[in-house]
Amino acid sequence: MKLADYIGQYKPKINMAIKETFDRKVNGANNRFLKDYYSELRDYFLSGGKRIRPLLCIATYNAFTDGGDDKIVIPSIGTEFLHNASLIHDDIIDKDDFRRGKPAFHYRFRQYHVNYELKKMIAEDFGTDIGILGGDSAFFIGLEAYFYNDFERDLNLRAIQYYEEAFINVSDGVLIEIDMVNKKDLTLDNYIEMISLKTGALIEKSILIGATYAKVDEKYESLLSTYGINLGIIFQIIDDILGTFGDEKKTGKPTEGDIREGKKTCLLISALNNLKNKRKEDLLELIENPEISDENVKEIKDLFLEADVINESRTLAKSYYEEAEKSLNHLKNIIKHSEFEFFEDLLNFVIERKF
Amino acid sequence: MKLADYIGQYKPKINMAIKETFDRKVNGANNRFLKDYYSELRDYFLSGGKRIRPLLCIATYNAFTDGGDDKIVIPSIGTEFLHNASLIHDDIIDKDDFRRGKPAFHYRFRQYHVNYELKKMIAEDFGTDIGILGGDSAFFIGLEAYFYNDFERDLNLRAIQYYEEAFINVSDGVLIEIDMVNKKDLTLDNYIEMISLKTGALIEKSILIGATYAKVDEKYESLLSTYGINLGIIFQIIDDILGTFGDEKKTGKPTEGDIREGKKTCLLISALNNLKNKRKEDLLELIENPEISDENVKEIKDLFLEADVINESRTLAKSYYEEAEKSLNHLKNIIKHSEFEFFEDLLNFVIERKF
Repeated sequence: MKLADYIGQYKPKINMAIKETFDRKVNGANNRFLKDYYSELRDYFLSGGKRIRPLLCIATYNAFTDGGDDKIVIPSIGTEFLHNASLIHDDIIDKDDFRRGKPAFHYRFRQYHVNYELKKMIAEDFGTDIGILGGDSAFFIGLEAYFYNDFERDLNLRAIQYYEEAFINVSDGVLIEIDMVNKKDLTLDNYIEMISLKTGALIEKSILIGATYAKVDEKYESLLSTYGINLGIIFQIIDDILGTFGDEKKTGKPTEGDIREGKKTCLLISALNNLKNKRKEDLLELIENPEISDENVKEIKDLFLEADVINESRTLAKSYYEEAEKSLNHLKNIIKHSEFEFFEDLLNFVIERKF
Repeated sequence: MKLADYIGQYKPKINMAIKETFDRKVNGANNRFLKDYYSELRDYFLSGGKRIRPLLCIATYNAFTDGGDDKIVIPSIGTEFLHNASLIHDDIIDKDDFRRGKPAFHYRFRQYHVNYELKKMIAEDFGTDIGILGGDSAFFIGLEAYFYNDFERDLNLRAIQYYEEAFINVSDGVLIEIDMVNKKDLTLDNYIEMISLKTGALIEKSILIGATYAKVDEKYESLLSTYGINLGIIFQIIDDILGTFGDEKKTGKPTEGDIREGKKTCLLISALNNLKNKRKEDLLELIENPEISDENVKEIKDLFLEADVINESRTLAKSYYEEAEKSLNHLKNIIKHSEFEFFEDLLNFVIERKF
C-alpha cells in the first residue's frame, strides 16, 4: 500500500487514539486550570505532525500478522507522545516560540498568562514552567499506550523497555549535539553517530515495538533496526538541508535557525572539511561570532554553496538509502506485500521530501 | 524496628542500587560529555536525601512477607528517581540554585559551562537546558528499577502503572499550586487537596509498589493508601512551617523563599482566613507586591504569628496524624511487628522533625 493510502487509512485512527488519551485527562480533572492544561496539550498534539512513528509501528505489526484488527493503533501512539514531549522541551531549549507555523507549547502558556492577567510571575517564566511540566506529562502519558490495550502484559512490558531505551538514545543524541556546538574538527562520522541517536533511535524503536506485538522472530530484528535507523538518518540529513536551503513556506520554519544556533549540521561539517585556508577561517570566524547578522547568514550560506555541501549531503543520504533498501529487500519475501510497498514508499518520500 | 535502625540497615543498600543504576550509564557512554553528564546525575542523587520513599516501599514489602531477601531494594528506588527528577525540574522552575545546601543540578552545569569556557550560549541557558534534560533522564532511568530485578513481569508492569500514576498526581498537584498563587479566598481544604497530590501521592505509591511485589491482599490497600497519603500531608504541613519558621542551619534553606514566591502555604491561607479587616488587607497588599523587601518578609511573618498560624497548622497536622495512626492500628495484627514499629516511628518523626 502506498504511503498516502496508509496515512489515509490510519492517521484518523491514530489521532483518535491520541485524542481519547487526553480526553481521559481533561474529563478527569476537577479544576479549571488542570482542564485547560490538558486541553492545551491535546490541541498541541492534534495541531499537526505526519505521525510517521505510529504509522511505522502499525505497518510493522501488519507486515508480520494477519492484520485486519486495529488493536495495534493504541500502543502505536506511545512513541508519538515521546516525540512530541521532546519537541515541547526542545522548543524551550532552542527558544523557538513557533513550530510548524503554530505556537509552541510553552508559548501557548505565555499567552495564557497574558490573557488572564496573572501576577506574581513574569509571563515568559510562566510559559517556560508550564512547558517543562507539559513535556514531562507527555512523556508519562505516553506510557498509557502500553497499559490500556488488548495485548498481553509481557509484550507491554517489553514495549515499555523500548520506550525507555528510545528516550535514553534520543537524549544522548541531543546531549552530544549540544556538546558538538563547542567542538571543531568534527567528521561526518561524528555527525552520523549523533543523528542515529537523536533521530534514528525513536524511528527504530517504533518499528521494534510493532515487531514485539507481532511476536516477530528475533532473526528479523536487525534488518528492521537497520531500516529504521537509516530511515531516521536520511530524515535528519534532509531536515538539515531543508533547514537552511528549504522553502520556508513549505517547511514552516526560518532558514537561518540552525546557522544562528551554531548547530553542527552535515552542511556545516562538510563545509568546514571542504573549504581551505582563508575560506575555512572566514567560515569559522562567522559561525563563532555570538551576534550573527542577516548579512552573516547570507555569507555563511554562500560559503556552504561554494563548498558544494548540498550535493555532498545528498550523496551521504543516498548511501544510507541504499543500506535501508538492502535490509528491506531481505524482508521482501517474508513480509506482506502491501507493507513492503509502504516501507519502500516511505523511504522514497523521506529522501525526496521538500517539507 | 526503629526508623534509625531501618535507615542504618537499608540506606546503604538503596544508595548502592542508585549508584549501580547510574554506573551502567556512565560506563556505557563513549563520549566525555555524556560521561560527565551521567556522573553529575549520579553525584546529585547521592549527595543527600532521607530515602523515605524507598524505605517505605521496602518496609511495606517486608511487613507482608518473610523478608530476609533484599530483592525489593532494586524496585524500591524507582520512586526516588521520580522524586529527584521532580526536584531537578522544580529547582529550575523556582530558580533555586541550591538544595540542601548543595548546588542544584542545573546550577552544576552552569558552573561546568563557566569552567570549560564554552561559547555560543550563555552559561545560565546552558545550565537550564542540561537541567531540563537531566530531569527527563532521571524520570526515564527510574523505570529501569522495574526492568532489571528478580520479580515477575506482571508485578513489574503493575509497579510501572503506579509510577506513572504517581507522576500524574504530583504534576497535577504542582499545577494546582501554581494556579493557587493567583487565587484568593482559598480554604485549608483546597490546600489539603493540593498537597495530597503534590506530596502525598508519591509516598502512597511507594507503599503500594511495595505491596504489589508482596502480593498484598487488595483489602489492605486502602489502609496503606490512607497511611501513605496522610504521612505525606503531615510531611508537607511541617515542611511549610519549617520553610518559614524553621532553623535555616538545620533545614538548609532560606526561610523567606515561600513568602517571596507567593506560595499558598497553610500558613498564608490560615493567616488570610484568621486576620480581619485592615490586618487582612495589610497582608494581601504585602504578598501581592512583586518586589518583597526583607522588611516586608519580616512584616508578613509577624502577621502570621499574630494570626496564630503555627498552632493552627500543627493542629491540622495532628488531625491527619490521627487518621494515619488509625489506619496503621488496623494493620497492627496483620503486618510484622518490626515494620509496624517502623511505620509508627516514621509517623512520629515526620510530625516532630525540625529539619
